[in-house]
Amino acid sequence: MNIKKLLEDVKSDKIEIDYAVEQLKELPYENLGYANVDHHRELRNGYPEVVYCEGKTDEQVLGIVDSMSKKGSNILLTRCRESTFVEIEKNISNIIYDKLSRIVMVQNHKIDYRGKGIITVITAGTSDIPVADEAFYTAKFMGNEVKRIYDVGVAGIHRLLARREEIEESRVIIVVAGMEGALASVVAGLVSKPVIAVPTSVGYGANFGGLSALLAMLNSCGSGMSVVNIDNGFGAGYLASVINQLD
Amino acid sequence: MNIKKLLEDVKSDKIEIDYAVEQLKELPYENLGYANVDHHRELRNGYPEVVYCEGKTDEQVLGIVDSMSKKGSNILLTRCRESTFVEIEKNISNIIYDKLSRIVMVQNHKIDYRGKGIITVITAGTSDIPVADEAFYTAKFMGNEVKRIYDVGVAGIHRLLARREEIEESRVIIVVAGMEGALASVVAGLVSKPVIAVPTSVGYGANFGGLSALLAMLNSCGSGMSVVNIDNGFGAGYLASVINQLD
Amino acid sequence: MNIKKLLEDVKSDKIEIDYAVEQLKELPYENLGYANVDHHRELRNGYPEVVYCEGKTDEQVLGIVDSMSKKGSNILLTRCRESTFVEIEKNISNIIYDKLSRIVMVQNHKIDYRGKGIITVITAGTSDIPVADEAFYTAKFMGNEVKRIYDVGVAGIHRLLARREEIEESRVIIVVAGMEGALASVVAGLVSKPVIAVPTSVGYGANFGGLSALLAMLNSCGSGMSVVNIDNGFGAGYLASVINQLD
Amino acid sequence: MNIKKLLEDVKSDKIEIDYAVEQLKELPYENLGYANVDHHRELRNGYPEVVYCEGKTDEQVLGIVDSMSKKGSNILLTRCRESTFVEIEKNISNIIYDKLSRIVMVQNHKIDYRGKGIITVITAGTSDIPVADEAFYTAKFMGNEVKRIYDVGVAGIHRLLARREEIEESRVIIVVAGMEGALASVVAGLVSKPVIAVPTSVGYGANFGGLSALLAMLNSCGSGMSVVNIDNGFGAGYLASVINQLD
Amino acid sequence: MNIKKLLEDVKSDKIEIDYAVEQLKELPYENLGYANVDHHRELRNGYPEVVYCEGKTDEQVLGIVDSMSKKGSNILLTRCRESTFVEIEKNISNIIYDKLSRIVMVQNHKIDYRGKGIITVITAGTSDIPVADEAFYTAKFMGNEVKRIYDVGVAGIHRLLARREEIEESRVIIVVAGMEGALASVVAGLVSKPVIAVPTSVGYGANFGGLSALLAMLNSCGSGMSVVNIDNGFGAGYLASVINQLD
Amino acid sequence: MNIKKLLEDVKSDKIEIDYAVEQLKELPYENLGYANVDHHRELRNGYPEVVYCEGKTDEQVLGIVDSMSKKGSNILLTRCRESTFVEIEKNISNIIYDKLSRIVMVQNHKIDYRGKGIITVITAGTSDIPVADEAFYTAKFMGNEVKRIYDVGVAGIHRLLARREEIEESRVIIVVAGMEGALASVVAGLVSKPVIAVPTSVGYGANFGGLSALLAMLNSCGSGMSVVNIDNGFGAGYLASVINQLD
Amino acid sequence: MNIKKLLEDVKSDKIEIDYAVEQLKELPYENLGYANVDHHRELRNGYPEVVYCEGKTDEQVLGIVDSMSKKGSNILLTRCRESTFVEIEKNISNIIYDKLSRIVMVQNHKIDYRGKGIITVITAGTSDIPVADEAFYTAKFMGNEVKRIYDVGVAGIHRLLARREEIEESRVIIVVAGMEGALASVVAGLVSKPVIAVPTSVGYGANFGGLSALLAMLNSCGSGMSVVNIDNGFGAGYLASVINQLD
Amino acid sequence: MNIKKLLEDVKSDKIEIDYAVEQLKELPYENLGYANVDHHRELRNGYPEVVYCEGKTDEQVLGIVDSMSKKGSNILLTRCRESTFVEIEKNISNIIYDKLSRIVMVQNHKIDYRGKGIITVITAGTSDIPVADEAFYTAKFMGNEVKRIYDVGVAGIHRLLARREEIEESRVIIVVAGMEGALASVVAGLVSKPVIAVPTSVGYGANFGGLSALLAMLNSCGSGMSVVNIDNGFGAGYLASVINQLD
Repeated sequence: MNIKKLLEDVKSDKIEIDYAVEQLKELPYENLGYANVDHHRELRNGYPEVVYCEGKTDEQVLGIVDSMSKKGSNILLTRCRESTFVEIEKNISNIIYDKLSRIVMVQNHKIDYRGKGIITVITAGTSDIPVADEAFYTAKFMGNEVKRIYDVGVAGIHRLLARREEIEESRVIIVVAGMEGALASVVAGLVSKPVIAVPTSVGYGANFGGLSALLAMLNSCGSGMSVVNIDNGFGAGYLASVINQLD
Repeated sequence: MNIKKLLEDVKSDKIEIDYAVEQLKELPYENLGYANVDHHRELRNGYPEVVYCEGKTDEQVLGIVDSMSKKGSNILLTRCRESTFVEIEKNISNIIYDKLSRIVMVQNHKIDYRGKGIITVITAGTSDIPVADEAFYTAKFMGNEVKRIYDVGVAGIHRLLARREEIEESRVIIVVAGMEGALASVVAGLVSKPVIAVPTSVGYGANFGGLSALLAMLNSCGSGMSVVNIDNGFGAGYLASVINQLD
Repeated sequence: MNIKKLLEDVKSDKIEIDYAVEQLKELPYENLGYANVDHHRELRNGYPEVVYCEGKTDEQVLGIVDSMSKKGSNILLTRCRESTFVEIEKNISNIIYDKLSRIVMVQNHKIDYRGKGIITVITAGTSDIPVADEAFYTAKFMGNEVKRIYDVGVAGIHRLLARREEIEESRVIIVVAGMEGALASVVAGLVSKPVIAVPTSVGYGANFGGLSALLAMLNSCGSGMSVVNIDNGFGAGYLASVINQLD
Repeated sequence: MNIKKLLEDVKSDKIEIDYAVEQLKELPYENLGYANVDHHRELRNGYPEVVYCEGKTDEQVLGIVDSMSKKGSNILLTRCRESTFVEIEKNISNIIYDKLSRIVMVQNHKIDYRGKGIITVITAGTSDIPVADEAFYTAKFMGNEVKRIYDVGVAGIHRLLARREEIEESRVIIVVAGMEGALASVVAGLVSKPVIAVPTSVGYGANFGGLSALLAMLNSCGSGMSVVNIDNGFGAGYLASVINQLD
Repeated sequence: MNIKKLLEDVKSDKIEIDYAVEQLKELPYENLGYANVDHHRELRNGYPEVVYCEGKTDEQVLGIVDSMSKKGSNILLTRCRESTFVEIEKNISNIIYDKLSRIVMVQNHKIDYRGKGIITVITAGTSDIPVADEAFYTAKFMGNEVKRIYDVGVAGIHRLLARREEIEESRVIIVVAGMEGALASVVAGLVSKPVIAVPTSVGYGANFGGLSALLAMLNSCGSGMSVVNIDNGFGAGYLASVINQLD
Repeated sequence: MNIKKLLEDVKSDKIEIDYAVEQLKELPYENLGYANVDHHRELRNGYPEVVYCEGKTDEQVLGIVDSMSKKGSNILLTRCRESTFVEIEKNISNIIYDKLSRIVMVQNHKIDYRGKGIITVITAGTSDIPVADEAFYTAKFMGNEVKRIYDVGVAGIHRLLARREEIEESRVIIVVAGMEGALASVVAGLVSKPVIAVPTSVGYGANFGGLSALLAMLNSCGSGMSVVNIDNGFGAGYLASVINQLD
Repeated sequence: MNIKKLLEDVKSDKIEIDYAVEQLKELPYENLGYANVDHHRELRNGYPEVVYCEGKTDEQVLGIVDSMSKKGSNILLTRCRESTFVEIEKNISNIIYDKLSRIVMVQNHKIDYRGKGIITVITAGTSDIPVADEAFYTAKFMGNEVKRIYDVGVAGIHRLLARREEIEESRVIIVVAGMEGALASVVAGLVSKPVIAVPTSVGYGANFGGLSALLAMLNSCGSGMSVVNIDNGFGAGYLASVINQLD
Repeated sequence: MNIKKLLEDVKSDKIEIDYAVEQLKELPYENLGYANVDHHRELRNGYPEVVYCEGKTDEQVLGIVDSMSKKGSNILLTRCRESTFVEIEKNISNIIYDKLSRIVMVQNHKIDYRGKGIITVITAGTSDIPVADEAFYTAKFMGNEVKRIYDVGVAGIHRLLARREEIEESRVIIVVAGMEGALASVVAGLVSKPVIAVPTSVGYGANFGGLSALLAMLNSCGSGMSVVNIDNGFGAGYLASVINQLD
């Protein structure tokens, strides 16, 4: 909102004072009672609207998606139960569900590919794939070329080194790892690109739901690396896209 | 190292096999016994060499700096005790010490300003300044334009909102906050730029050395944000620079 | 109990010594074996009786409600399983069940509206609603005017600022938030009214069942704020009512 | 700021557009570089300005106090080192220091006693007094009548019961307790007034710096009670005052 | 085993050396492969054999009970699933199951009442009863007179004070409490008898499975009190019996 | 206090009503402002008065000791700094200080030996001695015969087994151990006497200030055992005495 | 890979440069997309291939086993769900499933017994058997003689001492224990052989999923002992085999 | 002790019964009051006596060393304060002190080199050296050839890979690493030898005194690895020696 322009319009009697007051107060949210749907986010930054489904009833998710879809936005649903997807599918078209990562993509218009380089998603093991794919689909749906290199954990360091060139050619790297989370440190040591580390809750024993990998990644001696929440593949994919689309 | 080139040289008898074997093994580290100094880092990525001083004796730090300085590298020392600085100053010239952030900068050649935009460092309070300045000097010494907006925590949200425009004009944002760490979430909600959150150990009671801010930042509902370790101003400054200098 | 009056009655032979001994020992509790039902609470402070249902069998809850209902008290049941509600409904009339917040209200007499101002319940997200509604119904059933402002978390700070006036007109404010819990700090910074913060277990990863929000709220730099237990909507509603009904 | 008034002035040419733009941006903070001093807080809510001294250098504290003092505000400094006090004393008059609670009060004008009732501060033991006195002086300096009942912990429940009447006559109660923190629950069970519980770090062994008391207070089965951070006497005193001065 | 007597028998040729060697090695355990059943415990200390059922298959429990029952021992089974009880009941007679506390008592001979006084089991709330009854049945089956005083938590301190006399007449007191666990401290302050505190996992939020009550009890300022593990009603009942049967 | 007797006296005019009211309110505490000294404890249970010195100033301790000493009580001071002792020694006679355990004993009258058996204090290592001696002197000063068996940890199990007979002849056993705290389990398995386990903060690494030993002792598979707080030698000695003096 | 040989072949034109480049990059992994199967591990160290099944779908496990089986490797599957086993059994022969430890062994060729001595697996209780058997079958399948001594926990120390000789004759000892984990310390004190301690999640209350045993084992005062993750029977069996087969 | 032989001697009157009783009870410990010195350890396993100095007074350490030295044992003192060393040096000869690792070696006789291969100690950084050297000197003094490879952490993986051959030629490997502890996983993946991981408390922020490295190492996906306590260089060196000297 351009305050100066508004004030000029007030002065030149182009708009009423009361209307201007409203404008200064008004915000681009639609109040559904249980949710304030933000219709301007896509306009503002070209990204799809995002709905985090956990803790919302099927009815609530459907209501939000419906409101967004009417505005023609692309919509990304994360942590979507299959039952919720089934409900949405009945009402909304152009919809894809990736079961493993529980991602739903509602494509109401063509995706605008604005990424400047390749985002690469790397996992330590096979069990990290659901989280990694959440990052993969998020970054892709936000308009980036995304590549996957899976199951290259440090217990067999040469699996990783064999892919070194591909990794170096990326612009942003997402490393997804559970257990001791060491892969992120090694990758950050190999390249000079931003590394987003995603600890996963994969493991057992003194793993404490991903705490071991989280602490390891926070304490990494590798430079150029930061961390998102445990299992937060979406957050990593979103941030990677923001970085990859910087002018 | 270019393997293909090396092999071609071997084939064309330009180099001896034994020499090539050595090359394939040799690594650009100088072994000081207690440390393997990496002389190629600056060449590889144009960044200054970095020495983390905590846990090293004055003698060890001096030895490492000496070895690096002979190669003409710029050097950044973090967490440098004043006593260590005094020792180095006797032997090395072109050296600056920022007491509050405990940063030492040894400038052996002109800094190459390659940052594409402005990096902005924001703090919630006055007590977060030492950590914020560690980020500030790191990013600056790595060749970026860096701006500081300090003491704009969420308890008085309008202090922050008044600076919104400046923040939006940044290319990368570092948010430094202790206590409940809420500032990072609010900033990430205001802009569509990468936000690097630095929890600080500032606070008392159930703060647990910065754990409260760390958890808050990891659990942030703001998008486009990631977290580095508690009090890790250097890590945030370094990552911000990597992002700001992406081609 | 007025000790002096009792003693005077003893002296003046109005009552027997043994009766007085009983009086001094007797307490207004009815012993059901598994529970000591306090029949005087409503008389003492005008509040409904409260039964916390978790960890009690259906039979135990029914027995307690029955005993209280016979005295004509209004009764508030928290954390009530649907099966328990079904059992009670067969035996007790004037009963309302809110499924989402698991609150049951047994209204045996008209509610006495004694609140001096408005209590406002604010949530950060849609998933915080069950806890917020526990606070809402508790405060309402205790005789207060209560208002709800939901889904105004800090990731979109203007959703909150747009409601600032309403919030300022409240006498007591309850802020319900999970994840990083930052909303409470921002609200406490906006107004000069008592703010009761309720951390919720909403979130994932390093959320640790609400610990992240709890720590953030305890460490808040906002003044005039205090915290109740994770998910404790009842506690917040009760305390808000106590404050709102102070003479 | 009254937006409507401002707009009317713009329309009626009473003020310039550019000036109005400035007004809409301008905030009542004085930027000292390291701190944004809020000069309107006292005007807004009649409370003294508050400076939290921990993590600030003597120079920074002095600068802030000086800036506030010039506006004629009353100032409360918490966690003030003796050395800082000595510095301030040289420059500022009308200043009192309570060594035990590390509170400094700068009284630039008469305190306005606006409290509606008595605030009572209760401690479990002798060692809880420094925290309790921080609450006591805070509430007092904010214009309330405050009473102290110290060393009445639950290990000798009759010490507490003997003071019951006094406690019941309070309008707001602050309970300060370390170790197992049980006193807060017992007090909340005795009275129908708001109880603010302050866990202290007093104790040893599995006390974990006050965590035992904090958890106990959060899990209290007593109603009408909320909790502030460990050792946060200031927070409790401030909140008690807000409640006690509600219209 | 009397070593001297054995050696004398060896010397006087009453027993063979090899037999003595066996004796010195032999231990009164029957090896079932998956368990070493201790047949002498009852003889040694007059207590029933005890089988902790959690983590054991129905077959394993049955095997152990069968082996013990053949020796005529009384047997106490704790944490016994109903399915296990059903299996045992088919094979063993004189068996009682208390569903709430999951205790099974196999009475192969008359209980020898050797307790010197009354053991009293007190609970804070109704939800603590399953754990309290585990203590109650354990102490009873070990030959003690045991009394129950339930639902007298500190939120209504007079419910407890009304029973003070009964409590003082006990020889050993077991206090079972969840949430903030304050009851144990208050009881320990009232009497000069050994108090065994049992924290329970009853509660929610920042209760952490009973940790809040456990820490509170460990940090109690009450004297003459000690603590057993969370929900360990058996341990408290057993220890109370050992104390109550001291000569 | 005998309520019936008091009432009879009121009725028969032996005492005034106002006096009786006072009696019913009056409690045997002397209010020093910062402390409520309990003068009847020794009369009630024959034990010395106890002062926990940590967190109290020298003046406060001296004031309390002085008040108690005037009544002729024996006094036990725990966690007493040497400086505090020096202050007390100037004013009070018949005083002994054990430097290692920081215990001070003020003996104003002959100790009444009422223990029924021997209390034995066992330590795992040499470093546990300060805590063990706190238990030793506490139990001794409370009128018990106490024995010490030190440095018999489980890493050399035969050191313990060699003392088995002595241990079995005890009436109550205190086991003091840091590190893995295994000694308590082994002792509880050897004898059928009450075992009070005291975890100590001795150790390093993942010891967490005694947490490792505390958890081990709480989770012990040995029966007849309970736990006091980390390093709480006083608590163990006091409880052992209470058990040892049961009629 | 022999670098020198490769270079000589390049020089003597035996191989093409491009082929050599490939060789230097190529690694002995088969990429299944979701997994990089390492076909050379068995060749390298004579051990069976290992598949950790948790977090992998039945299809993924089957694909990996199939790929490995084609190379003729012996395969050990850990944490294998019964449903996965059923799927594998349909496709693969020579397969054994141990239900309790969830181990599957696919024997495609004769096991090579290369262990130099006996590995002994000891448990504290019956409930530790599933973890212990995971260690037992792992070590056995890797070519070692393995012995089991179960249910000899420290609460009855003589059960253990009776087996001392057998334990001393082992070359490597694995101690599996939950609850307080004391058995490992006692065993390490008895013998001078490497002791691998496996904490189990067996227990309840303040056991925290095996944390109590883990901390106890890490803090053990016994020498010659190290620890693997909670419930990690496989890791202990594997390490024991590595040690037992050292030349 | 050979029981059979003893019994035969008793039978054949070679020894007195009382003497045999003594023998069966007698243990090779010398009781110094505060410590039971084990004089047979060196005879039993050929290792030096070990004294852990933390938590012992200088007098106690000296007493123990004196007692051991008289028997001619070699003695290893760990965590030895310089002041303690100075005391010992006055009384004992043939004594070496390594200041960094705080190790003291008293060499009363020639070291018997019985290690079968090389033990290699690897560190991630320079700051890990004090802990690594504790392992180095322990293993050396116990009669092993020990090699050091320092500062080869994973942030520059080629520093490690360049030393691969040396590492593979070791018989036992000790990896010492703080921060994220990733080095241990990488090393365990490179070789098929037993790897003993030592987490160090090196680091800051969410390092929690070495917890991050400890958890990472426990959760390592590398096989053939186990963990000792944080900073426990001695434990690693001792265990490595036990493994290296297995027949």
